[in-house]
Order: sequence, then structure tokens, then C-alpha cells
Amino acid sequence: MFDYTAPLRDMQFILKELAGLDAVGALPGCEDASPDLVAAILEEAGKFAAGVLAPINRQGDEQGCRLEEGKVIAPDGWQEAYTQFSESGWIGLSLPTEFGGQGLPKLVSTPVWEMWFSTNMAFTMLPQLNVGQAEALLIAATEEQKQTWLHKVVSGEWASTMNLTEPQAGSDLAATRSRAEPAADGSYRLFGQKIFISYGEHELTPNIVHLVLARLPDAPTGVKGLSLFIVPKYLVNADGSLGDRNDVRCISIEHKMGIHGSPTCTLSYGDNGGAVGYLVGQPNRGLETMFIMMNEARFGVGVQGAGLAERAYQFALNYARDRVQGRDAVTGESGKPILHHPDVKRMLLGMRARVMAMRALLYTAAGWFDFAHYSADKAVADKYRRYVDLLMPVAKGWCTEIGNDVCDEAIQVFGGMGFVEETGIAQFFRDARIITIYEGTTGIQANDLIGRKILRENGATLRELIADLGATAMALREDEALADIADAFAETVDALETATDWVLANGQDRIADVLAGAVPFLYLLGTVVGGWQLARAAQAARRRLVEGEGDAAYHSSLVELARFYLATVGPQAAAHAATVCEAGGALTRFDDSAF
Amino acid sequence: MFDYTAPLRDMQFILKELAGLDAVGALPGCEDASPDLVAAILEEAGKFAAGVLAPINRQGDEQGCRLEEGKVIAPDGWQEAYTQFSESGWIGLSLPTEFGGQGLPKLVSTPVWEMWFSTNMAFTMLPQLNVGQAEALLIAATEEQKQTWLHKVVSGEWASTMNLTEPQAGSDLAATRSRAEPAADGSYRLFGQKIFISYGEHELTPNIVHLVLARLPDAPTGVKGLSLFIVPKYLVNADGSLGDRNDVRCISIEHKMGIHGSPTCTLSYGDNGGAVGYLVGQPNRGLETMFIMMNEARFGVGVQGAGLAERAYQFALNYARDRVQGRDAVTGESGKPILHHPDVKRMLLGMRARVMAMRALLYTAAGWFDFAHYSADKAVADKYRRYVDLLMPVAKGWCTEIGNDVCDEAIQVFGGMGFVEETGIAQFFRDARIITIYEGTTGIQANDLIGRKILRENGATLRELIADLGATAMALREDEALADIADAFAETVDALETATDWVLANGQDRIADVLAGAVPFLYLLGTVVGGWQLARAAQAARRRLVEGEGDAAYHSSLVELARFYLATVGPQAAAHAATVCEAGGALTRFDDSAF
Repeated sequence: MFDYTAPLRDMQFILKELAGLDAVGALPGCEDASPDLVAAILEEAGKFAAGVLAPINRQGDEQGCRLEEGKVIAPDGWQEAYTQFSESGWIGLSLPTEFGGQGLPKLVSTPVWEMWFSTNMAFTMLPQLNVGQAEALLIAATEEQKQTWLHKVVSGEWASTMNLTEPQAGSDLAATRSRAEPAADGSYRLFGQKIFISYGEHELTPNIVHLVLARLPDAPTGVKGLSLFIVPKYLVNADGSLGDRNDVRCISIEHKMGIHGSPTCTLSYGDNGGAVGYLVGQPNRGLETMFIMMNEARFGVGVQGAGLAERAYQFALNYARDRVQGRDAVTGESGKPILHHPDVKRMLLGMRARVMAMRALLYTAAGWFDFAHYSADKAVADKYRRYVDLLMPVAKGWCTEIGNDVCDEAIQVFGGMGFVEETGIAQFFRDARIITIYEGTTGIQANDLIGRKILRENGATLRELIADLGATAMALREDEALADIADAFAETVDALETATDWVLANGQDRIADVLAGAVPFLYLLGTVVGGWQLARAAQAARRRLVEGEGDAAYHSSLVELARFYLATVGPQAAAHAATVCEAGGALTRFDDSAF
Repeated sequence: MFDYTAPLRDMQFILKELAGLDAVGALPGCEDASPDLVAAILEEAGKFAAGVLAPINRQGDEQGCRLEEGKVIAPDGWQEAYTQFSESGWIGLSLPTEFGGQGLPKLVSTPVWEMWFSTNMAFTMLPQLNVGQAEALLIAATEEQKQTWLHKVVSGEWASTMNLTEPQAGSDLAATRSRAEPAADGSYRLFGQKIFISYGEHELTPNIVHLVLARLPDAPTGVKGLSLFIVPKYLVNADGSLGDRNDVRCISIEHKMGIHGSPTCTLSYGDNGGAVGYLVGQPNRGLETMFIMMNEARFGVGVQGAGLAERAYQFALNYARDRVQGRDAVTGESGKPILHHPDVKRMLLGMRARVMAMRALLYTAAGWFDFAHYSADKAVADKYRRYVDLLMPVAKGWCTEIGNDVCDEAIQVFGGMGFVEETGIAQFFRDARIITIYEGTTGIQANDLIGRKILRENGATLRELIADLGATAMALREDEALADIADAFAETVDALETATDWVLANGQDRIADVLAGAVPFLYLLGTVVGGWQLARAAQAARRRLVEGEGDAAYHSSLVELARFYLATVGPQAAAHAATVCEAGGALTRFDDSAF
């Protein structure tokens, strides 16, 4: 097991050079995000991640969770780590000061969460739920509800869950059956079963606040008949003290391939007369609010992809530097570490390139979030809101797929040792496998991208983004040393444009064919915007090199990193574009009975 | 858990239409392989796989193996299944009748082994070792050795192992340290530790025959100083009865991510005076013989890729036909199974296309083996021997990588249920992860492809193959209905030619750059020859359609399958070719200290 080293240099480079940390820090309400404070926070988070979360990650995998007489027992170390985590105020980092948070921009909290995910994803899912729930309550809860619940959710004194899935309602929430009956006192009684509820039950906090989707008696069918309810594990008295146990219980936990430290619960509501719940927001509008929480969670899952990939990369790199095997292909020398083999270096450089592309994309998107949220310039805020909306499925879908690929390649670097659990890398591979599934599978993200984000507005925002990509290619050409990068990147943008034209031309008449290419389109867009970020990194690095500022070796390496990405991942853009345009026909003609 | 259905129709189509079963059956020594006998064997194997091996696969995963007082205890059901398997004569299917085998061509045994791997890979690794060991002994052992060991290895009365890896000698066998000292009676005493020995110890057979690489006292350093020894678990008396326990013992077994039912042992030789061993073949020439066994094993691992992928595909297809979720993208209808969603159909069709491409490639290669082995026409035998040699790293490397991809995609079809172990699909994903590693990682296969199989002969065989690929494209054009397939396939061949030219042009001066593209080249070649096979399948299917023979719906579906592969996998060829030619420069310039 190798120690975790917070990648602070890479993080700082991206924050400052690509994601606009200075500009974000100048936004009204973001003044606290000074470079010094941000550096101090990242430093501190890196220590906490390496010193507290990383050391208990493997025992979480080995021990898993146990359900004993209705109680879920978390792995050793979880309680201490959670107490320290919440008491250090990490949960509220980006949440409003009014409710006990620190009110920092998302751009600052994103690298911090990346470090948590790198070092202990199963643990971090717990506080991550608080952040999502807080965002939902901030938007939809009444002032009284906020006072009752929000402070303790932000501080982490109480834990949070989100309850959507039911056995017959997975990706399709329209099939939700849980129901809520109004009670005389204005509250509700909930009945039904929810599955796949992360941290649905545990003893780590004195109370758990469930957010539950259910139907009111008179609700319309489909997703427009879902309402959202707060259902606490323990009722809360008027003075804030805990009252009776509510009528919700954990009836089983899943035996999963990964994230063993995170209990995945089946919760039964209302077996003894109904679980007391409180309506949040308007009746039948619950899904809209839940989507706020889910959007937060989706971005967070994208960050999980980058975080797991970073750690897997570190593991593989350390091993490749230690392990001596074989002879040098050129000199015939033996006794050198395997990093020296071109194929091993290829894997590691590919891992590094993709980690940096994901990270730069996610931080840039986090910056857009902040511009959208805080900018006083309506045009700026509006543009970045649209960019965030467009690229959210990519941030989630592409970064989780690539995160899996990187974890997979890390095992390959280890060879046989990677398949042995003691080595520790297998856990990352197993843990990562859930991230392309939960919070909406890659297919769901891709359908959202094609349907809601592109076709619904006839490609307007995507066209705007493509123009920005073209502008970057133009700007790259101004520096002759980057001309080859400009060309290679421009080729990927051309592929994106070709596929975009095709999707827009066929979105009406051949929607099934277009949706058959939805995931390839998502990969295509991810490939291009990932390359965009690395090309921008090369551009910024060259600026520093020309100015003779900073670490020249580091900056030179970023230029080669962009080249390597464009030579290895970049050519996939044209391949994905071809698939988008070509695959639907054969797929539609292939008769289902011939499978 | 879904039942296994032997894909007999697909197997028969490939055997007859693509892999030349009739021609193989006409070869001297292959006369027994009549269509009727082959059909009966496949039928019987399908029943055995579904009825005996599949039902114990999951318990093998759940129970794993235990080491208790030096004894390895296999999962429940293993003993009964092995007894039935060996007594049915399955091990000797393709081994010489002289030693108790059935002497059938490899083309016939390949689909049979595919079924074993589909239904229980961890179990099947055991008899698979016997086949590889038998091949090695047939080539290198003395007549007396053959009489002593081979009959029982072929029947399966005794089990086999291969012992190469040591802690410091993984991919690099030159670092082997185990040693063998000559004894007065002409035998040897072995000392050393071997790791990662599959089925290195168990109670399933009364004896285990280890084949061990070790160094003689006067041996040169490097791989040219390795000799091969038979080291039985129990010594064998002159009358064939079992004698004393030999000085080899299992000191630990690995805790692995998958193939839990297959014990992976650390074996210690010679802790009590030396393990009795018998030299096989010439001193210092052990690696050559071991490579025979390893080549057999490498092909077999490629078949594992196809077998696991077939079963994962069946799992996912059954689920997609059962699971109702969401609304139809075109009609808005609900209540339909998820197979109806274009993205789910895309995944399943992609899985089917790749399974068929792998299977057709492997069976075709098996046919080439038989031509090489049995053909009286020296030119034919020679050509196919060279084709087998060239494509062996692809059969292993590409089919295992694609096998993993298909198992991964199967989980995605299941969504959250795929991550839950009870569903059963996660096991295939975990089991599959070893196949790109053992018997030589994909990187090792790719280096072998570039170095020994292409550069060493200046691309001669590859050029010959490319000419054959071009001939197929030409032939496809003769049928207008296949013109688009011909074009799409020809594009992939062009990409292969471009990359081949580049590799041959730079193999001398820029070997590190060329090796940096070795794995992309292997993917490229796999993509193209996989497409070749599906294009040939489309051609054969069209012939039947035009003739009005056979199942028209099935044959039509094969034409669309080729189109779909060429639209989804095919475009990767150009991307891989670009990577082969472009990636090395940036990789070489990237300084190792900048990771």
C-alpha cells in the first residue's frame, strides 16, 4: 500500500491557469477565496486525506458493514474519522455561512472533495450526501424547515440520505410507488420500500435525515406526481431534542463488488402505521428539487472519477518506479524499474494525461458554477449556467468512464500483483465500477445530453461551445511551438462538429438512431473538451516558459502531456463521430429476435 | 442467475462457413472429425457445461479455496465435477489416441473449451493445465517419461501445473533463481520458490505433476540457462504406484479479486533436502519447451476471453429482455423491456458483435493450427504456421482485452443490480480481469507481436496477411449488397497498412517509439482481423440468402452484425493507427521525473 500524496502542484496550476481562481475570487460573495486561504485549505485537506482517510480505506473494504438487529455497524475507524471530519467543518466548505458553512466557491471545494474521494470513496459518500441535501433544502424548504434541519446537516451532526430507487423504479422514477398520506397535524405518513440507499442506516450520527420521493393520494401518474419529504430517523421535538424513533427501518444491506465501507440499504417505510414525514416544496414538484440534489451529486460523482483515477495513477507510478524487471529495449541493460519500458510508460502517461484532463474539466466547470451563481454580469452568469447544464452529463458520464479506465490500467501496470487483493489496487478498480452506474448511468447521462441539452434547444449552447473551442485552436496557432497541438486539437473539434450536424439533422426523424449514438456522442464530447483543457494547459505552460517564470521542467512536461493526449485519446474523437453517424442504421435494422 | 445456453448455432456457422471444418476433416489424421460427430460432441459438451460446470461456478466464487495444514481444499462440487469431467474423456479430446486421447483437431476442441470457460473458468483452469503439459511432454519428453506421465496426464487421473514465476521473475524469466542439482541416480534435486502457481496444490487428484523451470549448476545466466523438470507431488514407483511425498509444499494461497475457485499457490521446493525432479529435454533448453506449453495456454486464455464474454452477453441479454423500465423513445409507450432502449440495444449488439468476432478469429486460428499440423501440402502447412505465429499474440491479447470490455458492458446493462454480487454478473467481471495479465500481459503480447513476429522478419507474414485482407475486401465488392461493408472494412485495412509501414520504417532507429505503440498496434490488428471475420461471415450469410438456404432471419442478422461492428469498432482502427504513428515522440520526450 502506497501513501497518498496530494497533487497540490497540479491542482494549483489548474485552479490558477485554467479555471480562473483569481476571477472567481473577485466575484461578489467570493472575496474570502484568496490565493493564500485556498493554498492553506488545500494543504490542510491533503494532510487530512493522507493522514485520516487513506489509512482506513482498506479496512473499510475488508470489513465492510454489518446489519445486526436492525443496526448497521460501519467499519473500524469510520466513527472517529467522521467525527473529526465534521468537527473540522469540511462538510460546510461551500455551504452558506448563515447555516454554519464557510461559503467558499465551488472551485475551492472541488479539489478538496477530489482528495477525499482519492483516499476513501466509501467513507466520503456519507458527508457528500449532506452537501447535496443541503443544496436541495436551501432551494425548496421553508424557513422553519431550514432552521430545524439545515444547521445540523451542514455541520454534519446529522447525516443525510436521498431515497429515490424502488425495485421497479430505477432509472425510471415515473414508476415510483411509495406513498404519503396527509395527517391531521399537517405532516404526512409515508409507506413503501426504497432500495440502494447509501448510508440509509448507521450509528455514526445521532440522527439521519432522509429525503424521500413519494406520491400523494391525489397525485398524477408519472414523474409529475412525485413529492419530496423529509423523514427523519428520529423525530425532532420542538426544542430540537430527539424524540421517538420514526417508522423507518433497514431490512437488509447489499453485498456489493466494491465500496464495502458504504452500507447500501433497503429501507422500509411505514410498517407500523406510517413514517412521519414533512413535505418539502410544492406537492408533485418533488422531482425538480431532487434533481438539484442529484445534479450536485452527479458533479460529485464525476469528481469521484478523477479522484479514484489520481490515486490509482499514484499507486501504479510508485510500483513502476520500484519494480525491477526485464531489459531495456534500446540498450539491453537490465536492473531498471519497469517505468523504463515504453509500454509501461505509455500506460502511466496515458493515466496522467486523462487524470489531468478530467481534473481540468471538472475544476473549469466548478468555476463556471461560481460565475453562474455569483457573477453580477447577467450575460456571463447566463452563459456559464448554460455551459454547466450542457456539460454536466459529460462531467459525470465521461469522467466516470475514464476513471474506470484509469483504475483498470493501474491494475495492468501491477501485472499479477494487481489481481491480488493485498496489493490494494484491486479495491480502486472494484470501487470505481459503481460510478458509471449510480446517479444515472452513462446511458442516462448521454440521453440527457442529446435530448434535453442539445436537441431541445437545437444545439444552441453546443454551437457556442464549439465556437469557443475553435477560438482556442486559433489562439494556439499564435505560438508556433504549439502549432501541432492546435492542428491535432482542431481535428477533434471538426469531428465534434460533424457529429453535431448529424445529430441535429436527424434528431426529429431518426430519434432512435440518434439515441443509439448517444453514448458515443458523450465520449466524443468528453474527448474533445478534455483535449481542450490540456491544450489550454499547454498554452498556459508555454506562456510561463516564454516568460521564464516558474518550474520549466514541469511546464515543458505539460506541453508534452497535451501532445500525448492528442496522439492517444484525440484520435478517438473521429472514431466516435463515425460511430454516432453510422451505427444507428444497422442497430435499428437488427431484429431483436436475432440476438 | 440465468442458465447457460450453448451457442451451438453460432458455433456451427463459424466452424463450417469460416473456419473450414470440412477441409480440416479431410486432412490426413482428422478423418474422425465428421460433421455428425462434431455436432454430437458440441451437443454433449453444451449439456455438460450447462448441467455440471455452470451450477457450481458461483459457489466456487463464494467459497474460494482454503489452505489447511498444507492441504488446499477446493470448493464444494469441484471433486465431483472433476471426476466426471476426466472420466468423460474431455481432457484428451485433442490429444493423441496413443496416450488415451481422442486425437480430434484443435478446431473441434476449441468450441468445447469455450463452453467450459463460459460456465466455469476457475474450474476449467485445472484440466486446461493438463492439455498444455501434455503438449510439452509430447515434444520434449523421452519415451520412458511419456509412458510414466503422459497417460495419466491425458486421462486426468493426475493433475498438471506449470511453474515459471518467482517473486523477482515475473514477465522476466531471465531472473529465475530456482536451481536443480544432479543426483547420483540421474535425477535432480530442486530448490527454490515459485509463486502464482494455479492449482499448485489440491486434493482433487491422487498426484500432481509439476513442470518446473530451474537452473543447473553450470547454467549460463539469462533465459538460455533454464532447464525444465518434472517434479511430481508424490514419487512414482517402477510399477506405477505412488511412493513417497516429494519435497514440495504449498506455503500460502493468494487472496484474489476473482477466480476464487482456482487456488493460486506459492510452492516451496527443497526445504528438506531437495525435491526429486527429472530433466525434460535438453539442459538449458527448458524455456523452448515451456513456450510450447505457454503457447497452448495463451491460445486457451484467448478462448477464455470469448467464453467469459459469451456468458456475460447471455446474462445481460436475458436481463434486458426481462427488466421493464422507462418509456419508448419514439412512441412514448411504457411497459417494455429495456432491450427496447436504443442505448441498451447498442450495448448488447456491441457485445454480440465482439463475441462473434473473437470466436470467429479463434476458431479460424484453430483451423490454421490444424492445417499447419496435419496438411500434407507443405506450402499450406507453412503458411498457416506463420499465420498462427503472427496472430497468437492477437488471439491472446486482443481477445482478453475485448473479453474484459464485454464483461464490463454486461454490468452496465444490469445497472445497480450488476454491482450487487448476488446477481452473479460481477463474478465474470472479476474473473475476467486476470486474463489480460497471466500467460503474458497484453504488453508482453504486443512486444512479442512487434519484435518477434513483425520486425524480425521485416513484416513478411503481416504483408501476406494484409494481401489476404485486401482480397476479402475485393471479393465482398462482388456482391453489391455488401459494398458498404467492403468499403468500411477496406478502410480498416488501409489503417493497418499505414501503421505497418510506419513500424517497419522506424523499427531500427526508433525502437522505443515503436514499442510505445505496440499495444495500440495489437488493438489495431485485432480490430481489423475481427472485422475481417465478421465481413467473411456476412459474405457467407449472403451466399446462403441468395441461394435461399437455411435460416434467412439469422443470416440477415449476420450481415447487419458486420455493419454494426464496422460502424462501432471499425473506426477505432484509424484511431489506433494514428496513435501508433504519433504517440512515441511525446512519450520519449516526456521526462520520467515529471510524472
